[in-house]
Amino acid sequence: MDDEIYIGLDLGGTNIKVGVLNSSGKLLSKVSVPTQRGPEVVIANMISAARKAVDHAGVDLNAIAAVGIASPGSLDIDAGMVLHCANLPGWDNVPLRNRIAEALGAPAILENDARAAAYGEFFAGAGRRSHVRNLIMITLGTGVGGGIIIDGRLVHGQKNMAGELGHSIVVPDGLLCGCGQKGCLEMYASASRVGQRAVQALQDSQKPSTLRGVLKTSGELTARDVEEHARHGDELAWDIWNQTCRYLALACITAVHWLDPEMIVFGGGMAAAGDFLLQPVRHHFTANYWKLEPPELTIRISELGNDAGITGAAALACALLRPYADNKGIRNAGK
Amino acid sequence: MDDEIYIGLDLGGTNIKVGVLNSSGKLLSKVSVPTQRGPEVVIANMISAARKAVDHAGVDLNAIAAVGIASPGSLDIDAGMVLHCANLPGWDNVPLRNRIAEALGAPAILENDARAAAYGEFFAGAGRRSHVRNLIMITLGTGVGGGIIIDGRLVHGQKNMAGELGHSIVVPDGLLCGCGQKGCLEMYASASRVGQRAVQALQDSQKPSTLRGVLKTSGELTARDVEEHARHGDELAWDIWNQTCRYLALACITAVHWLDPEMIVFGGGMAAAGDFLLQPVRHHFTANYWKLEPPELTIRISELGNDAGITGAAALACALLRPYADNKGIRNAGK
Repeated sequence: MDDEIYIGLDLGGTNIKVGVLNSSGKLLSKVSVPTQRGPEVVIANMISAARKAVDHAGVDLNAIAAVGIASPGSLDIDAGMVLHCANLPGWDNVPLRNRIAEALGAPAILENDARAAAYGEFFAGAGRRSHVRNLIMITLGTGVGGGIIIDGRLVHGQKNMAGELGHSIVVPDGLLCGCGQKGCLEMYASASRVGQRAVQALQDSQKPSTLRGVLKTSGELTARDVEEHARHGDELAWDIWNQTCRYLALACITAVHWLDPEMIVFGGGMAAAGDFLLQPVRHHFTANYWKLEPPELTIRISELGNDAGITGAAALACALLRPYADNKGIRNAGK
Repeated sequence: MDDEIYIGLDLGGTNIKVGVLNSSGKLLSKVSVPTQRGPEVVIANMISAARKAVDHAGVDLNAIAAVGIASPGSLDIDAGMVLHCANLPGWDNVPLRNRIAEALGAPAILENDARAAAYGEFFAGAGRRSHVRNLIMITLGTGVGGGIIIDGRLVHGQKNMAGELGHSIVVPDGLLCGCGQKGCLEMYASASRVGQRAVQALQDSQKPSTLRGVLKTSGELTARDVEEHARHGDELAWDIWNQTCRYLALACITAVHWLDPEMIVFGGGMAAAGDFLLQPVRHHFTANYWKLEPPELTIRISELGNDAGITGAAALACALLRPYADNKGIRNAGK
């Protein structure tokens, strides 16, 4: 068994990433290639990138025990199909899992990219510590997504829709979300909305702000602009950033009362802010959490960053082959 | 194996309930006795009630395969201890699980009462239908509690604190809860708070309401008063009831995006309102749910009522002895 390897493929709008893990969960090699247009060429690229990564790892193609594929878009996980994807034109009803499995000669699984990343963080990132059995990852990008691990298992739900954390309702009758709901977390805490909320705040007030110049020059504001100007003491930028952290903290409090996880991990572009995100989130969590018992939650930033998807996909493929095994046991045994 | 039986004990502030289940999950007999004062006499009563229930079931005491005990209060589940209980004076650091196990000569487990009830509903109540693998129960009583079943397993969390659904934050900076948080679901949707919110509404407005007479006569209002007067067309009572259902619906929407369960079940005293609770909750759920895909959630009222605790405790005891088995399989196989 020690010679077996697991392939993790992460299909992104910009790049295809491949990682090769051994059965102890160690990343042996990785390869990244640009995502081209159309499923046929992309699938061919995924297969050749996987072969290249296996070659880099210095192992044989026959050693592939299983393949995990992380994909964006609307998926039929049971059938292994990409049904539709806004970021990948032409990807309609593509039997991605079986195409990859046949080409690489190994069983494969398909998983939602945000959930695969959450499992990666659990398996080998911030949540790799052996006491962590329950972990929630909140991904702060264009939208807000995530994944939930309960007692070592990734939660899928009845229709594989679990983990849509961005559509938690955090403000009754709040801002109208593109999804049709009002007051979604995504409307207060996604990277794109942080920039937009700052633009709105500039328009709504006469407050001086160093962001006014940025808006004038570039016509828009990003979460990165808000973060930077908040770091440099701009009051309006800090207000937006701080409010964002407060909404995230309130969502974390609800999560703790529901699921009592050991850890919540923030990932995605906005998590690059590191402690500048973490400290206000932790502050608001403690300030707003109940007083009956002290919180025992750890809130962290993703440790795997862009490798979370390939790691999680490979680890899930491993779990597929060993459904009754305790993955943490396997992982820790190998260290 | 078919002759094995499982005992479910439900320790309540008013009554001790005992149920005897066979290995197919069928309730063979039940017994209820009043809860007396102090742990010694109560434990003795629990044991004798269990023996009586076994006798009523027409089986032998040696047939007891395992015992499940549902208890209120603060518990150390791993140690099987009742640490403290507001409703049961004198119950401090009582090794309830081992006392019962020794007396009945069978392995026993201790579980939080709301979680046991949730598991009971999953196992043999509203969630018994074989397609239900993920279920959330929300208990509307003096407080709001509950339990979560994911992929057939009861969620405990790191410190056995999962399922404190009443302390979800549904209104940022909302009403101050006794727990120290602001805007807890419990402050908007518990039976006691529904009555108190109606009192407040009467004081805050000059609106005519048939509840004014009730308040004058009895000095307080219950959720049952609000429900009855709402049923009879009182506008103020209906507003309070309807708002309550709306907050519950918003909490259900968040739950669906997090965990994607097949079913949410309402239990506890206020669930006795039946369709009068269910219909507005379903209405607000549909009206406020995202428009990307239609909801596939079923919202129901508890079917087991007061038997949910004993059924769940016994079923959990069964799961303890068969940790790798699929309980639903066992349950359905016996039918």
